[in-house]
Amino acid sequence: MTKSPFDTDLDRNKANHEVLTPLTLFNRALDSFPQRPAYVYGQTRRSWGEVHERATRLASALHQRGIGKNDTVAIIAPNIPEMFDSHFGVPMSGAVLNPINIRLDAETISYILSHGQAKALITDTRFAPVVKEALAILNKPDLLVVDIDDLETDEAPGERLGESDFEAFLETGSPDHEWQLPDDEWDAISLNYTSGTTSNPKGVVVHHRGAYLIALGTNASWPFAHDGQGNFPVHMYVVPLFHCNGWGHVWGLAANGGMSALIRNVTAKNLYTAIAEHRVTHFGGAPVVLSMLINATDEERKPFDWPIQAYTAAAPPPPSVMRAIEALGFRLTHVYGLTETYGHVTECIAQSEWAALDDEGMADMKARQGVRFAVMEGCMVADPETMQPVPADGETIGEIMLRGNTVMKGYFRNRQATREAFAGGWFHTGDLAVMHPNGYLGIKDRAKDIIISGGENISSVEIEAALFKHPDIETAAVVAKPDEKWGETPCAFIELRDGSTLTEDDIVTHCRAHLAGFKVPKTIIFQSLPRTSTGKIQKFALREQVRDTA
Amino acid sequence: MTKSPFDTDLDRNKANHEVLTPLTLFNRALDSFPQRPAYVYGQTRRSWGEVHERATRLASALHQRGIGKNDTVAIIAPNIPEMFDSHFGVPMSGAVLNPINIRLDAETISYILSHGQAKALITDTRFAPVVKEALAILNKPDLLVVDIDDLETDEAPGERLGESDFEAFLETGSPDHEWQLPDDEWDAISLNYTSGTTSNPKGVVVHHRGAYLIALGTNASWPFAHDGQGNFPVHMYVVPLFHCNGWGHVWGLAANGGMSALIRNVTAKNLYTAIAEHRVTHFGGAPVVLSMLINATDEERKPFDWPIQAYTAAAPPPPSVMRAIEALGFRLTHVYGLTETYGHVTECIAQSEWAALDDEGMADMKARQGVRFAVMEGCMVADPETMQPVPADGETIGEIMLRGNTVMKGYFRNRQATREAFAGGWFHTGDLAVMHPNGYLGIKDRAKDIIISGGENISSVEIEAALFKHPDIETAAVVAKPDEKWGETPCAFIELRDGSTLTEDDIVTHCRAHLAGFKVPKTIIFQSLPRTSTGKIQKFALREQVRDTA
Repeated sequence: MTKSPFDTDLDRNKANHEVLTPLTLFNRALDSFPQRPAYVYGQTRRSWGEVHERATRLASALHQRGIGKNDTVAIIAPNIPEMFDSHFGVPMSGAVLNPINIRLDAETISYILSHGQAKALITDTRFAPVVKEALAILNKPDLLVVDIDDLETDEAPGERLGESDFEAFLETGSPDHEWQLPDDEWDAISLNYTSGTTSNPKGVVVHHRGAYLIALGTNASWPFAHDGQGNFPVHMYVVPLFHCNGWGHVWGLAANGGMSALIRNVTAKNLYTAIAEHRVTHFGGAPVVLSMLINATDEERKPFDWPIQAYTAAAPPPPSVMRAIEALGFRLTHVYGLTETYGHVTECIAQSEWAALDDEGMADMKARQGVRFAVMEGCMVADPETMQPVPADGETIGEIMLRGNTVMKGYFRNRQATREAFAGGWFHTGDLAVMHPNGYLGIKDRAKDIIISGGENISSVEIEAALFKHPDIETAAVVAKPDEKWGETPCAFIELRDGSTLTEDDIVTHCRAHLAGFKVPKTIIFQSLPRTSTGKIQKFALREQVRDTA
Repeated sequence: MTKSPFDTDLDRNKANHEVLTPLTLFNRALDSFPQRPAYVYGQTRRSWGEVHERATRLASALHQRGIGKNDTVAIIAPNIPEMFDSHFGVPMSGAVLNPINIRLDAETISYILSHGQAKALITDTRFAPVVKEALAILNKPDLLVVDIDDLETDEAPGERLGESDFEAFLETGSPDHEWQLPDDEWDAISLNYTSGTTSNPKGVVVHHRGAYLIALGTNASWPFAHDGQGNFPVHMYVVPLFHCNGWGHVWGLAANGGMSALIRNVTAKNLYTAIAEHRVTHFGGAPVVLSMLINATDEERKPFDWPIQAYTAAAPPPPSVMRAIEALGFRLTHVYGLTETYGHVTECIAQSEWAALDDEGMADMKARQGVRFAVMEGCMVADPETMQPVPADGETIGEIMLRGNTVMKGYFRNRQATREAFAGGWFHTGDLAVMHPNGYLGIKDRAKDIIISGGENISSVEIEAALFKHPDIETAAVVAKPDEKWGETPCAFIELRDGSTLTEDDIVTHCRAHLAGFKVPKTIIFQSLPRTSTGKIQKFALREQVRDTA
């Protein structure tokens, strides 16, 4: 067969082909807005030019220590400058960044360092006690440990565990270091262990191509771009960078020249202060962050009179939270995603005609997980056995399946889990949902959160949504309780608003008004709910609790 | 060497890798906003769902005629629905779309059909006289010709040249046709012949990867994205789709769900009517379009009270035009690009600190071609011999060199031109520019527009900028005039504003106040200027004119 002239003498070359990587966006930030602020943190304010120099030094320093392509560099830190710098500097060295959740216990940290084969660890001294213990368990004397001394926080500094601190380590690197882009856009950029709400943490490997596309895609699916007229986004970095690389916004900001107000401790006071001081225009956060903003005291609250775009993910926000946050001036967009998908992969884009809906109708629409992101190529709700999509009837439950360029390479050193996750050519999320007639996804549950009672499938999310309709209920989580007769029954954990005197009977009465009888919780427990660092309620802990007391 | 665990069992698969192509964005538009309008044209209004069906039928109809991968399908039409549909339907068949400038002569059209090896031609009957002549010259009886009968225009329909019209042809296709994404994102999507302001038209081959990236990149570098709250862009399609595929916006709109008001005839009345009727929020156009908006009569003009984002390219807009257009409520961003780069590849992003500049200072800044786009990986001004960048002094002239993923595959069936264009691993634009100390590009001239007078290089753009400072001068173009003594001297062609009595002497006096003596035009000619379909002044025609009269 003769070659088409469209394929003849028209090969890829240096002029017309470059790997997709957020590092080219970072280089452009250096060329296009070197003086613009990249982040502000307390008294520390650095421009994109300065961050580029620090990242280059970091890459150089790592290179000098023999760390390069496909080596793992772990980091334990909240959203502070060193964490931001490392999201560029570590990939610039060719190494793979492994951000570790700061709230993990020593054993899990040591497991991740061991399983992830870390050659270096950058660690905030405030976490020294647990990290020290983790290093003792790990027992790897040749691990390069670099400490971060955060001078901007009031918290007392911790013990130094490494040979040098971050600033001294940067000094060993050259600002003129000639680092290279990755050979292949499929090269790993980050290794992100799943938060462990389900089983043992698995190491999610994400690549440069996907990181570039989530960065561009977020700018293309959210009004996040600069306007060309001198107005750039001001982004409050609430989502921990150790969680899906902060949804990839760190890389997306390199594309739009935005500034991040870095937030070490997520408190209502810190959030409102950042908003007022820096004129924040964008942020992402779990519903618990929205609740924090809504329930702030008058002293914590600061006024603002410009619209703020807010992404929220994790648990579907209750309608009451959505109404309250919008009344404060936030423009909420509900997104959905997983560590395996670089963060958000569906978004609840409001359609123009929703403007005609009443409050409740609008809240119901906005609580859906929506449609796939611009950079996600496939999303279906399907039967995992047959891989056939369920009917778009808003009723039939199936598993959310995704495919596209912002799906991970797979799980690190876990062929079996990778194979299962990609069975049938789709990524199996483990999340159960319905497809609404308007093509919008509605999450019902994590596969293991479905309650099977007397042979009926009950969605714990549906019960939670009914509970949230009661104005006195601040938060609720429903799990399956083992039951001799029914197999399982719904058990509701409730946090009441301050001052409420709501009783168990009141709640049952309320539920009967909103739910079929078999869905009404058989057990109601008033207590404060355990949460992950990103505000997800740790249902596994609640499940353990009811199992132990059953 | 053992393989890294980051490269083991972590291969590309159907779940985590898809080719980059605007067709996935189009599929998502179908899934995510099927009911939203894709375009409006006269009484014709079609949703993204309807356009997707038409495009599928077109792909099917072409497939049935044996047209598929790497076959060329030419189209001669202005910005009408069939042109929009074809930008999706033709690539969906695997074929390569070849949009041909509607203002070309029969001989050039026949050259393009022949050189481009077109297997099909879709053609608007209003251009039948010239197309008929072109087909006679081409003499290719097996060419499939499909006519477009535009029912929305007042212009009288022309002769039918083909076997069926577009609507009937669509009817032969199936809406359920199972078309395929391209095998490779490097596959050609479009073949765009350069406008011929310089030499013989060359066929620029662009690929799916680049088309996807320009689509996403425009959304990421311009406030073009929907806001997630029910507000979608309304785009007035002024840039001809036969010119760099209308800067790729047709594909970018599939990503943001925007609507296009299609403009067949670019007149002040049509533009203002579209703005008022559809509440236009975005458009791109040459400076001549801006002038049209500025100089509209009271009857043509319609009021609007919302900001409209405008991209302008081609010749640098004169400061007076920029001031006037912004005063009307347009937010102007100056971009630069070429057919070889899918349209815009640099943009003049306003920096916050420019707000402190006075009008003239701001206009000077905004007249620069700016910094590279988010999806362009390299841009330098360099000596084409040594490939060394010129100093960023705002003085030293070099050639603009680009590299990145939105650079063409090369020229169709023209190995020599392709090789020259990519010499040294950069795409040579042929445009001459300086690099300003702030890293912003400032175009001086096309290589052939430089005037060499007594051994001095004179930028015709610099002289034009001086001329534009005079309030009576509507448009000006400066070219080299052969001169026995000096080699060349500057010759200025001038269009005066209505009612002006400005004389040659007045202009010389004005120029002396703004330019070094040797740059002052030696010849001044008052006349109307010849333009291309995109509003570019045809300097080659002016050069011929002065050569003939020299």
